Amino acid sequence: MRTISKEMQACIDACLSCYQMCFGMAMSHCLEQGGAHVKPKHFRAMIACAEMCRDSAHMMLMDWTQAKSLCALCAEACETCAKECEALPDMKDCVDECRRCADACRKMSGQKMAA
Amino acid sequence: MRTISKEMQACIDACLSCYQMCFGMAMSHCLEQGGAHVKPKHFRAMIACAEMCRDSAHMMLMDWTQAKSLCALCAEACETCAKECEALPDMKDCVDECRRCADACRKMSGQKMAA
Amino acid sequence: MRTISKEMQACIDACLSCYQMCFGMAMSHCLEQGGAHVKPKHFRAMIACAEMCRDSAHMMLMDWTQAKSLCALCAEACETCAKECEALPDMKDCVDECRRCADACRKMSGQKMAA
Amino acid sequence: MRTISKEMQACIDACLSCYQMCFGMAMSHCLEQGGAHVKPKHFRAMIACAEMCRDSAHMMLMDWTQAKSLCALCAEACETCAKECEALPDMKDCVDECRRCADACRKMSGQKMAA
Repeated sequence: MRTISKEMQACIDACLSCYQMCFGMAMSHCLEQGGAHVKPKHFRAMIACAEMCRDSAHMMLMDWTQAKSLCALCAEACETCAKECEALPDMKDCVDECRRCADACRKMSGQKMAA
Repeated sequence: MRTISKEMQACIDACLSCYQMCFGMAMSHCLEQGGAHVKPKHFRAMIACAEMCRDSAHMMLMDWTQAKSLCALCAEACETCAKECEALPDMKDCVDECRRCADACRKMSGQKMAA
Repeated sequence: MRTISKEMQACIDACLSCYQMCFGMAMSHCLEQGGAHVKPKHFRAMIACAEMCRDSAHMMLMDWTQAKSLCALCAEACETCAKECEALPDMKDCVDECRRCADACRKMSGQKMAA
Repeated sequence: MRTISKEMQACIDACLSCYQMCFGMAMSHCLEQGGAHVKPKHFRAMIACAEMCRDSAHMMLMDWTQAKSLCALCAEACETCAKECEALPDMKDCVDECRRCADACRKMSGQKMAA
């Protein structure tokens, strides 16, 4: 009965998966590791990415007209978080999740995929 | 690197799935159908269930000490929503999702499963 | 100790006030009234406005670099909601709150104020 | 037109004020200070308090039947955060906000006030 397109559902899935990874990692692994993992630039990028993913999924579930614009912002937040996590040796799962979500969000927003 | 137990991850999955079903159905199908689907008691049960599920997942992702107490409340909200949706002929997917999530939340909270 | 500017705090206040008005009115008054108050276009505009306001406040509290872009989207959601509410005789408080928040969000985003 | 009681509105105000303080302080001051301010126990208490406050306000805005139970949990989260913040010399604003919110939430939940 729900009329959300396959492409939009795939983007919702990617967003909720990335939200779980970034918020879960930040609040457990990063806080436990300390040091570079809780540097403001890194930690804020992770929380911001998690929240933008959660919010984008929410507006897509409503099929709201601004969902695509939100996805474009979300793709940027995911890229920022991926770059921050690449600088640390133990955040590869997070990097991969962020890149996947950035791709799904760019596709949803009508932008070209990353090369 | 994340240390969340299998049981807790299963409950997070059930909560995020039920959140998507209830919020998505409320904001599309129920609003489009109108009538009994937007009666305050029914519609509020759906939104409350969606939000309790989203919040419970969030606190489990933090592995916060109160997550089990929240899951106990979430199980109640899911049961209330399931009962509301059973009274309508076209909400079976939502009923099933709510029952599944109520079971997962009861299990997580340490309560006995529904008979 | 918090370093948020006066202008940004004013926008956070406007967003959290508009969120309360729109979400509170939608989930009580609009559902109780029924009829035009639960037409999909009207009701979705109210919930979308409430959520965009809540999310924008959240990203401003983090002083996240994308907060201004979110505020620009939030201003649009507030205007859409204000227009929907103007068409009903009993939603003046909501119209006023949405216009105030749209102005604050436009100011924050660097856009010109509405004429 | 909204029918929320004065007491409930006071609790919503306390919750949204405490949410702003705890989330804003955590994501700026605590991350910038580092050291004891980003110890897992302290930082998680602040984020958990912020989220419980935000969620409790949301369910009160819906006047949902479980709002009082959520407020009881929220009061506990506020007390935990207040105790954590008391151990640091520069978090007095946060301690005061958490105590105020804990009192408002206990009152709303029907529990006796703290002595």
